Amino acid sequence: MSVEARNLVVAQSGGPTPVINSSLRGIIEAARDLDAVGTVYGARHGIEGVLKEELLDLSAQSAEEVALLRFTPAAGSIGTCRYKLKAEQNEDFDRVIDVLRAHQVGYFLYIGGNDSMDTANKIAALARKRGLDLAAIGVPKTIDNDVGDSQFKLIDHTPGYGSVARYWTHMVQNANEENMGSCPAGPVLVMQAMGRKIGFIPAAARLADPGREMPLLIYLAESPRSLEQLADEVNDRLRTSGRCLVVISEGFEVGDLGKVKDSFGHTAFGSSQLTVTQAVVNYLNHAGLATKGAARGNVSGTDQRHSMAYASEVDLDEAYLVGQKAVELAGGGESGFMATILRNSGLPYSVRYDKVPLAEVANSERTFPADWISPGGNDVTDAFVNYARPLIGESMINLPMVDGRQRLARFEPIYATQQLPKYVPQAER
Amino acid sequence: MSVEARNLVVAQSGGPTPVINSSLRGIIEAARDLDAVGTVYGARHGIEGVLKEELLDLSAQSAEEVALLRFTPAAGSIGTCRYKLKAEQNEDFDRVIDVLRAHQVGYFLYIGGNDSMDTANKIAALARKRGLDLAAIGVPKTIDNDVGDSQFKLIDHTPGYGSVARYWTHMVQNANEENMGSCPAGPVLVMQAMGRKIGFIPAAARLADPGREMPLLIYLAESPRSLEQLADEVNDRLRTSGRCLVVISEGFEVGDLGKVKDSFGHTAFGSSQLTVTQAVVNYLNHAGLATKGAARGNVSGTDQRHSMAYASEVDLDEAYLVGQKAVELAGGGESGFMATILRNSGLPYSVRYDKVPLAEVANSERTFPADWISPGGNDVTDAFVNYARPLIGESMINLPMVDGRQRLARFEPIYATQQLPKYVPQAER
Repeated sequence: MSVEARNLVVAQSGGPTPVINSSLRGIIEAARDLDAVGTVYGARHGIEGVLKEELLDLSAQSAEEVALLRFTPAAGSIGTCRYKLKAEQNEDFDRVIDVLRAHQVGYFLYIGGNDSMDTANKIAALARKRGLDLAAIGVPKTIDNDVGDSQFKLIDHTPGYGSVARYWTHMVQNANEENMGSCPAGPVLVMQAMGRKIGFIPAAARLADPGREMPLLIYLAESPRSLEQLADEVNDRLRTSGRCLVVISEGFEVGDLGKVKDSFGHTAFGSSQLTVTQAVVNYLNHAGLATKGAARGNVSGTDQRHSMAYASEVDLDEAYLVGQKAVELAGGGESGFMATILRNSGLPYSVRYDKVPLAEVANSERTFPADWISPGGNDVTDAFVNYARPLIGESMINLPMVDGRQRLARFEPIYATQQLPKYVPQAER
Repeated sequence: MSVEARNLVVAQSGGPTPVINSSLRGIIEAARDLDAVGTVYGARHGIEGVLKEELLDLSAQSAEEVALLRFTPAAGSIGTCRYKLKAEQNEDFDRVIDVLRAHQVGYFLYIGGNDSMDTANKIAALARKRGLDLAAIGVPKTIDNDVGDSQFKLIDHTPGYGSVARYWTHMVQNANEENMGSCPAGPVLVMQAMGRKIGFIPAAARLADPGREMPLLIYLAESPRSLEQLADEVNDRLRTSGRCLVVISEGFEVGDLGKVKDSFGHTAFGSSQLTVTQAVVNYLNHAGLATKGAARGNVSGTDQRHSMAYASEVDLDEAYLVGQKAVELAGGGESGFMATILRNSGLPYSVRYDKVPLAEVANSERTFPADWISPGGNDVTDAFVNYARPLIGESMINLPMVDGRQRLARFEPIYATQQLPKYVPQAER
């Protein structure tokens, strides 16, 4: 570490993924090799950890534990948060600058989705205004694959998505084995996919059956229909195949489900009073199916974003490398950018790592391409399959195990000494 | 194959498991080596396949596909069923004998739970009465681990249970990573376990945390309490740990859920109008938690009995060997027995394969040992952990993959030529 080295703070925001810790590992390991970077701190529970000056010393952790981040899902190691730094929360923004200054922080890396890129951008701007020499860089993360633009020019896909797509590949393949083997008493299985209002996750069910051999219906929120119409389509499959698998988005509209909002103003689907799946199962069982027998539902919920055995090795590698890229950018004096993953044209699949302005990412909105939804509205096209297929990889990862359980990364509770008076974040007052 | 060789019919009944196909494979491969056994037929969709004379020729399948049964979950290959041969369905029983006779069947192997052992026993008795030389042998199977007696004398544990126990080990470990990393906005995660009214599956959550470091509450159906009391216990964990994981049995009583019954008269929990988890989540979110924020729920449903990556290699091996044992018994002229797995005393863990009378199994009922439930009623004891721990094995299995998807066993549709007039099973008339 040179005398001019400045410290680095990394924070995570939003829902976790099986590979978020791989980005964290990429950051820690890249920073270790860079003279310009001193200590790497992890803000405990995202931006709240900065506000509360809870900075976990990641440079002090053992190399073995850092390497184990590859096999550790979610964000348990430093934590994530949904605390939103709203534009009008000036005191919060000032506090962030104060904390970063107090700890000689020259690099701020924010792992998250669109909202986080917006926050990182605001922090970069405020630092400039306050005369703090801070490189603020965003690191993309979300299972929903909703970061960036719809033309895939700012980013091809978000780390986290490949693993949940892979989860759905296995889930549907295995569920099809059960469904195929069941007698007529239970021919309909409804499975609920995450992704809020954007269809990339339910669409991934198609990767289980690119040849369209299964009686599989896929309902995205983008392709709404009445429960009556949905039941008609299920009944068609029952007539032709004697059974049916339904994958449906948690954001599919089926009427009032008693939804609640999280602190970002987003719907918290996991906490609603009735799931989409339950509404569909109840309608099917009580409005009547063409074949006798019952529909049933699986709502695997958060399991799809932390089921580590199904993580994609492509996704794990990319998450790591995009974290490394972020450190390279920050160390090179860049600020106000998101490290990104762009797909090279042609086959075989390959990507390059680059940078895009945070402001552009924050102001863009990705939608699921309309022409990737089949004309019938209950399937996705081969163009989607071609896009998503490389992201799930080829082989299973081999989880390290100890005494029958996963060996997960465990950090020592070594924190930066607090320099400032206690502070209560504005939204918690 | 000698001239006196007689054919073998294997049928499966009830819900599938990740290892049911391993028992099938053990049967096919053991029979292949036995001169006394001619062709092995798989009854399509269980006993219904016998009644309808739909007998898949398993001897005609390639050795490679048969070997792949190890990595193929559920019962897609020959199918399972919940068709119940009730004692008074005399015509059905007569038809079974007729079909077995028509196809020179000398061996009938029934893979299933208690009900199936009862059916196999009745078929054995009727065959004797009708002068058909038939060896009827049961092969145990159920994720619920509810076959046999409560003293574990008839069988130590049922194939299928070890894998679902392993699933819950990973599930809770990974969910704990997410829960630990979440900010106070989502501190309570409720996860619903299968197992109907018997607690072995939810109890397996304890294997994720034998050292009791997680704020984990485990509710078995055997340890009922009011939603109010349950909420109090969750609030206690919130006060001490700031978060809480709840694993709850699908059979836990929380009032009217609009349950439906299957053809065995058992409750079909997956088809009820409201899940136990949803009822608990709604109560927690609306009756109020001690800490602000929302509870959410996962109902992974059938995923826990077909999520192949989490299958236990111990369970896979035992399922195979108990299938082999069944063939050995049948080939040796035994009838009216269930092949069984008995645990040798002492450590390290080892088992032996033996036989127990079907009548004894059919007339026994296993309950979850009361002294394995902790005094507080929301956990299980170390005695349970010691019992279940060896069953989940040590390492991950490596699923064969092709083009990003699991390579699953696929059989050719080669069926025995039908010899008898068409027949409609009694319960379908």
